[in-house]
Amino acid sequence: MHLTFSLAPELPQPAGLEELLDNATASAEPLVQQLIAHSLPGGKRLRPALVAITAGFYPADPAEVTRVAAAVELIHLASLVHDDVLDNAATRRSRPALHRLCGAVPAVLTGDYLFATAFGLLADTKKGILRIITRAIRTMCEGEIQELSVVNFCEEAYFAHIAKKTAALIDVACQSGGILCGMKRTQLVRLSRYGTHLGCAFQVVDDLLDLAGRSELLGKPCLQDLSQGILTLPVLHFLEVSPRAGQWKEKLRRGGLTADQGRELVAQARELGCLEYAGQAAQKQVRLAQEALEGLPAGKARDSLAMVAQKVLFPLHLLDHTGPAQAGAQPEQAASPPVPALQQ
Amino acid sequence: MHLTFSLAPELPQPAGLEELLDNATASAEPLVQQLIAHSLPGGKRLRPALVAITAGFYPADPAEVTRVAAAVELIHLASLVHDDVLDNAATRRSRPALHRLCGAVPAVLTGDYLFATAFGLLADTKKGILRIITRAIRTMCEGEIQELSVVNFCEEAYFAHIAKKTAALIDVACQSGGILCGMKRTQLVRLSRYGTHLGCAFQVVDDLLDLAGRSELLGKPCLQDLSQGILTLPVLHFLEVSPRAGQWKEKLRRGGLTADQGRELVAQARELGCLEYAGQAAQKQVRLAQEALEGLPAGKARDSLAMVAQKVLFPLHLLDHTGPAQAGAQPEQAASPPVPALQQ
Repeated sequence: MHLTFSLAPELPQPAGLEELLDNATASAEPLVQQLIAHSLPGGKRLRPALVAITAGFYPADPAEVTRVAAAVELIHLASLVHDDVLDNAATRRSRPALHRLCGAVPAVLTGDYLFATAFGLLADTKKGILRIITRAIRTMCEGEIQELSVVNFCEEAYFAHIAKKTAALIDVACQSGGILCGMKRTQLVRLSRYGTHLGCAFQVVDDLLDLAGRSELLGKPCLQDLSQGILTLPVLHFLEVSPRAGQWKEKLRRGGLTADQGRELVAQARELGCLEYAGQAAQKQVRLAQEALEGLPAGKARDSLAMVAQKVLFPLHLLDHTGPAQAGAQPEQAASPPVPALQQ
Repeated sequence: MHLTFSLAPELPQPAGLEELLDNATASAEPLVQQLIAHSLPGGKRLRPALVAITAGFYPADPAEVTRVAAAVELIHLASLVHDDVLDNAATRRSRPALHRLCGAVPAVLTGDYLFATAFGLLADTKKGILRIITRAIRTMCEGEIQELSVVNFCEEAYFAHIAKKTAALIDVACQSGGILCGMKRTQLVRLSRYGTHLGCAFQVVDDLLDLAGRSELLGKPCLQDLSQGILTLPVLHFLEVSPRAGQWKEKLRRGGLTADQGRELVAQARELGCLEYAGQAAQKQVRLAQEALEGLPAGKARDSLAMVAQKVLFPLHLLDHTGPAQAGAQPEQAASPPVPALQQ
């Protein structure tokens, strides 16, 4: 699943981003326009914010920054549209997923249209940016395809996977801004490392919310990963430490869990401290991201990046304080056990 | 449906094309590599041939020509992979369609991977080329989305549609070669017009073969369009001239035709000369393509383009001489009425 926190605090954005997103994607075909209009709004624009902030270390052309930021966001949106079709997800950002409104066919084509629009925007920028962005998309696709072929019960594979699926594009968003303001190779390596850890932190938090978040706050149902047989960090840790791991692995090998089985697993995982463990893993990634910033010029840009990394942990506040996630549950149906201590 | 003639005479290709296609798409992920290996071979490489020929009007960098040609082919292949998923097509180039081997999810991702690879190749070429190619992809997507929303009983809409769906990429393949060898704006307009008519001729012939071709020669089953309720030129003409058009429109409005209904429609259309009519329409498009060449420098490049246009009509030889198309029929099952006179 991709990242969908809807309550993160607002991030600084490049000037004219929304206008450019609207103009660049505009189509004379009414149905295309309608599909685009459904796909564009509602995101927190993390990737454009990162392009804008990292381009702020030195002077850069503001129009070019907005163009690259818009392109990166469109690539992200395109991959969301395709992922939702592929996961058969029901909702996205509290609204019906595009393919549920219009069917899979126009949704896949809308994704392709968004990809093409993004590359059109990148025609007018530095070649190096186009090159790293296309490489990141390939990496994302490889990560997603790999996820389909390997059932992995190992944390190392999980991090390698989310580095591809999620962190690759966040990494190049950061590098792109650096390239736009003329940063040196060694500085770009630091931005890349920051982006990778930030992206991993982000995905760990998102995966944790899927297990233990409250669906009405997240704008999408919870326990989607388990129902699809996708094993995320808290579950992987649970399968290492639980005395009943063998039985659970057997169930998971046979496919996704039912909602009841999922809730039962989360309850056991919570008891064994696995949710807390994942929260700490996210904090560690944030710390590594912040450490990567150390060699970069001090000032507003670096402070903003450190602040963004800290904000990634914010959605942990949304963790269900009242018990395990309810698949599609109404608020009044939730039970009331204690809060996992994720916010030290 | 996209173009899939498998028996067209061979076309001249840019040097090192296949090697570059292999190298550019290579992945360290075994499953990705396997999916790519299934998607690359078997095409006749019309679009790369057009890039190579049009780049031959004046001197051009051969490595850049091959790179752009490979990029255009990869975009074509990506759109084929996505289309096959969306049409739920069973076969492609006499082999199982990718998604039938591996499922829709990796197939959509493989398409995305191919798109990204193509744009990576375009990072090293003239910006104008990236710009027209991204515009063409948007146009293709708009054409395909439009097809889903409008049931059209009109020839004009059919041509407008195939100009978007098929001719747009062939058009930019021709323009790209022209840009690579430094042709003037007025010359590029001629190449664009040539490509548009060539693409239309191509699609008309492909649609005709779907109705009346022999599936074992085409490498895919026939009558796919009708079974999906897609109305192509011979059928649109039939609905204009047939005294029983009203009944057929009613059936088509209710969705795709069964195989038996499809065969019955083709038999009636054949009798009323509708297949011949479509064959003549393809010839007219070829003529217009060749006329567009008239202002271009005489010589080998122009002759080759004229020859390619003529070759587009070649697959009409594959038209079933023995009767209406049999959906998935074996040769021995075919009946034996007279040949439509499409090759004057």
